[in-house]
Amino acid sequence: MKKLINSPEDVVREALEGMELAHPNHLRVSYEPFYIVRKDAPVKGKVALVSGGGSGHEPMHGGFVGMGMLSAACPGHVFTSPTPDQMFEAGKVVSGGAGILQIVKNYTGDVMNFELAAEMLKEEGIAVETVMTDDDVAVEDSLYTAGRRGVGLTILMEKILGAAAEKGMPLKDIKALGDKIRKSGRSMGMALTACTVPHAGKPSFELAENEMEVGIGIHGEPGRRRVPMAPADQITEMLMEPVLTDLPFNKGDTIILFVNGMGGTPLIELYIVYRKAAAIAEKHGLKIARCLVGSYITSLEMAGASVTALRVDDQMLQLWDAPVNTPALRWGV
Amino acid sequence: MKKLINSPEDVVREALEGMELAHPNHLRVSYEPFYIVRKDAPVKGKVALVSGGGSGHEPMHGGFVGMGMLSAACPGHVFTSPTPDQMFEAGKVVSGGAGILQIVKNYTGDVMNFELAAEMLKEEGIAVETVMTDDDVAVEDSLYTAGRRGVGLTILMEKILGAAAEKGMPLKDIKALGDKIRKSGRSMGMALTACTVPHAGKPSFELAENEMEVGIGIHGEPGRRRVPMAPADQITEMLMEPVLTDLPFNKGDTIILFVNGMGGTPLIELYIVYRKAAAIAEKHGLKIARCLVGSYITSLEMAGASVTALRVDDQMLQLWDAPVNTPALRWGV
Repeated sequence: MKKLINSPEDVVREALEGMELAHPNHLRVSYEPFYIVRKDAPVKGKVALVSGGGSGHEPMHGGFVGMGMLSAACPGHVFTSPTPDQMFEAGKVVSGGAGILQIVKNYTGDVMNFELAAEMLKEEGIAVETVMTDDDVAVEDSLYTAGRRGVGLTILMEKILGAAAEKGMPLKDIKALGDKIRKSGRSMGMALTACTVPHAGKPSFELAENEMEVGIGIHGEPGRRRVPMAPADQITEMLMEPVLTDLPFNKGDTIILFVNGMGGTPLIELYIVYRKAAAIAEKHGLKIARCLVGSYITSLEMAGASVTALRVDDQMLQLWDAPVNTPALRWGV
Repeated sequence: MKKLINSPEDVVREALEGMELAHPNHLRVSYEPFYIVRKDAPVKGKVALVSGGGSGHEPMHGGFVGMGMLSAACPGHVFTSPTPDQMFEAGKVVSGGAGILQIVKNYTGDVMNFELAAEMLKEEGIAVETVMTDDDVAVEDSLYTAGRRGVGLTILMEKILGAAAEKGMPLKDIKALGDKIRKSGRSMGMALTACTVPHAGKPSFELAENEMEVGIGIHGEPGRRRVPMAPADQITEMLMEPVLTDLPFNKGDTIILFVNGMGGTPLIELYIVYRKAAAIAEKHGLKIARCLVGSYITSLEMAGASVTALRVDDQMLQLWDAPVNTPALRWGV
């Protein structure tokens, strides 16, 4: 295992220390339990957005803490759900009196622990709503989920709902908007290589030199099928066609198109994928209003990519364009 | 070779097509010859900044084209210098009457071809100045250079000089500021794995499972030494100590500290490196005024990291903080 780490036990804590040192204007970090909150929390009268999940998917979620996006992120150990006390403690710190919206990717442990945290926060008199993402069309159930996995759509949801909260939208409306986004976005990913969880010390699976895994999850969970390597354009089709036909997206729809790297894939390859993904979207009669290309929801050093398409209306687009000031997404400020 | 590409010959062109589709508000692309210019070029009365180099280092340089940074970027084929006609044609397009500043990393081919382009542009009546970066302390001469290689400092220089040009600073002053930055910054990198140039089809070198290369160049050129794997803190010391003692940086200096990923290293590891790099800088009595953590000057999918420290004064810091609007760096707008 070749990694820039000191020891598997210290990976998350030391990375959080690095984040806190690197982004003192954006965030503060708690180490017992682990959570990251925006520097100016609590923001009075604003709905607080809390997300979280296993570490190893950076910059998600800690890199999205800041003005216009998340109020708090709760990182578990690598590929491990955060515990309820993390969301409970973070929730109390960021609560500004207008309630908390939890954004939860559909993994069984995450869902359960966010539910427990919500109960604990409600007992403190804090209103809590939860929206889920389950946008991965690759498999109906998986190793870690009942139902579909939550993946790339989470980033788009955090940005749009974060802007809504910043503008003062009340909790029940943000919850409704989140549910609408959940129904309007789909994703699928693939891997060229596995990744190695520090504690495990060896790759989570083996792929031959001429093989790839299509429909992979962000923890190296098996996908739809293991197939021979193919040119980027064919790979992009294998991802885009299931994504576009599942919702389905219809001719004339306006979308945000997101091409994501899994952590070990260089940007030059993501642009090659984006080129084809955009062409396929246009062939389907979709209008790409905005896009995002980069490694935002990753699986450690896994090489591979995922695509996410979100059908948007004018409100969502305005919220997408609204100012955001986080370590990983920053514009308008 | 497992890559998200279609064919080695098409990598650069297709990535440029993807960039142009993804960033229509920032840039335009020419395909014969290859160059990227900011959307609103030429900007009248402003010094135009032109940089370039081999592809495979993305987002450098194309990702830094836009308001407040580069006017044009000229990408060669992967790890291959751009040809003089690229800088000549791009220079004519972006020239706004106040001259052109070329930012050139010290590689023999790049230096020669930018020099030829400068001569050709001068014959067209355009004033041209050139600043070089040669910040890599690892080796005095290398496979591709007489003198030290230009690496991470290039990004900081492009940001600061880009802001200076945007504020209307005249060519000779920008050139002088660039020379000052050149003398004030140092870098060093290391690799855990090699990368594979698409045309070659196999890794540029082999590293055993328990080995790393310290002092590596951004094309996989050999570094100072091949040593056994070590914990991240020790690796960070192996990079920071030569960087800090070379200039030397002195107690009380204010710096920008940049921890860069080589393309295949996940962000979680870069934060672990940043944590230690910041501690070492502080132990030396340096004040870290700003930092940058991410994969900005890469070597395809190589796993590894580099550190860059730049001693700054108030002017440089103000220019660093000034608005920038490019695909890869964006703030203040």
